[in-house]
Order: sequence, then structure tokens, then C-alpha cells
Amino acid sequence: MAAASNLIRPARPGDAPLILELIRALADYEKLSHEVEATVEALDRDLFGDRPHAEALIAEHDGQGVGFALYFHNYSTFLGRPGIYLEDLFVRPEVRGRGIGKQLLTQLARIAVDRGCGRLEWSVLDWNEPAIAFYASLGADLKREWLINRLTGDALHALADAGGSR
Amino acid sequence: MAAASNLIRPARPGDAPLILELIRALADYEKLSHEVEATVEALDRDLFGDRPHAEALIAEHDGQGVGFALYFHNYSTFLGRPGIYLEDLFVRPEVRGRGIGKQLLTQLARIAVDRGCGRLEWSVLDWNEPAIAFYASLGADLKREWLINRLTGDALHALADAGGSR
Repeated sequence: MAAASNLIRPARPGDAPLILELIRALADYEKLSHEVEATVEALDRDLFGDRPHAEALIAEHDGQGVGFALYFHNYSTFLGRPGIYLEDLFVRPEVRGRGIGKQLLTQLARIAVDRGCGRLEWSVLDWNEPAIAFYASLGADLKREWLINRLTGDALHALADAGGSR
Repeated sequence: MAAASNLIRPARPGDAPLILELIRALADYEKLSHEVEATVEALDRDLFGDRPHAEALIAEHDGQGVGFALYFHNYSTFLGRPGIYLEDLFVRPEVRGRGIGKQLLTQLARIAVDRGCGRLEWSVLDWNEPAIAFYASLGADLKREWLINRLTGDALHALADAGGSR
């Protein structure tokens, strides 16, 4: 069985350098390398510190860390239940086709069900047809009518200051 | 000043019935009323219980609760920093045009900056042109290239079970 040499495990302290390497590889694939500002220290703090902001699964193949899924809880007001939002899913190109991505998603779906979550959600770039087809094969619904707004940098600070003195 | 009679305050225990009423009014506006399963008990637990999954701001106009913003933290692996995700923003139609929506967003931007967050993000329906124009006027960037995938219900359970016995 091809899958026999794959292992999915929770990330643990010490994984931050590997996770940063995989985040950079993912950004490179998405043509967004210029946006990566994360550091090993930041990931250590935010994944394994006193107030974690995210969790991660690591995929190992033949004992090597080759992929990851980084996620956190979101909340659906319509369902009145938390969900899981998958921020990043990445498997190194050289080990694709071995079911590792699906194993990561399967494990996440289990975590969602075990925790009473109503949804597992994530975003995909509209030009990433192989990923879109893969997600559809798992039964995911592509919400083409929802668009994401982002306020960041100077615009975020300008709005924060818009109300005048505090 | 029209804004003088508006008050933005954090939600507190006892607000769950008002928040559910506003969630239902929002769903009605979005033509998604059939999707609302939330209850007062669920909102009480998830906003004010031992393990909160979300926070909310309430907008009052002339002493009446007329709007809300419900949000939680997300995480950007590219920034290596948490962000704020605004799940719901709603102001009752009869009190629109008084700057209440902008006051809610301004307060959220302040919270994001105060907490060291790199981004404030939210979604909008692609046919909601007034909202899209309003958000653009605040400096928000519409990420048209990102599409949201959602796995829920039977498809979520089927994937969770796909790995065989646990």
C-alpha cells in the first residue's frame, strides 16, 4: 500500500523551522513569496505558546516532514457552532500522488467531527484547477458568490484612527 | 451630530436574544434564512461560556440594540501574526445612513491594531454592490482570486470516515 509509509501527526514544539520552510514553499507555489514575513520565533509563539492562535498537522513520508495543514477555529452564526478553517495545506511536489493531501484533509475532518464542528472551510486560488477538482471530489462546495475583503497595513491603521481621539 | 446618539459597546451576557434576532435579520437580507439553526443557548455558550469561540460588538441607537459585529481571531501564516475575521456585520435597515456600520468597523480596526493583528478580513456576497462600494471606500482590498470551499454535513462525515477504523 502506497499510503503505508505516510504518517500524519500533530505538530509539536521544534517543528516551527519545518513549518516555516513549508510555508515558504507554499508561498512560492502561489506566486506570493514576497508576502512571507513569518519567522520561526513567531510560529513557535503562535502555535506552541501560552495563547495559541493556530494548530497544525505534519505529514511525514519515509520519516521526513513533507507536508502540513495549519488550521484554527472559526464560528458560524447561522449554525450556532464553531467550525474549522484550514489556512494552509501543502505537500511537497516531489511526494505528490501518494494520497498525503487527502490524508491531511481526512484527519482534519475527523478533528472537526470529534469537536462538534459544523464545517470545514478553506480558500483556493481561482486558477488552481487541480486543487479545485481535488476538493470537489471530496464533496466540498465552492462558494463562488462570497468574496473576501482584506484591510491591512496603512488602511487598517487609518480606519482605527478614524474615530478621532480614544 | 447624527453620530452622537450611537453607542458601540462589547456584547455582554444577556445579549444573546438580541444577537440571534440580528443574525436572523441579516440572514433574511442575504436570502439565507433557511440556513439559520443557531439558538440563544448556543450563542450564550459560544460567546460568554468557559471556552468562547467568538466575540461581538453591539451598536445602540437611542438606547436600542440596532446592529452588531461578530468576530474571532484567524491567523496569517504569511505574516506570522493573528488577524481578526469579521463573520457578521449588520445594521437594521431603518437606522442606516447614520454611520453605525462604519463605527462598528472602526472599533474593530482599533481592536485589531491594539491586539497586534496584521489584518481585518470579512466576506461579502458578490451581488451586494452597496456593501462592496462601502468597504472599498474604507481602503479594503477585494480578493477576487480567492474562492471559499466548504465541507459540511454528510460530505464532512464521509471524509472523516474515509480513513477506515480509528
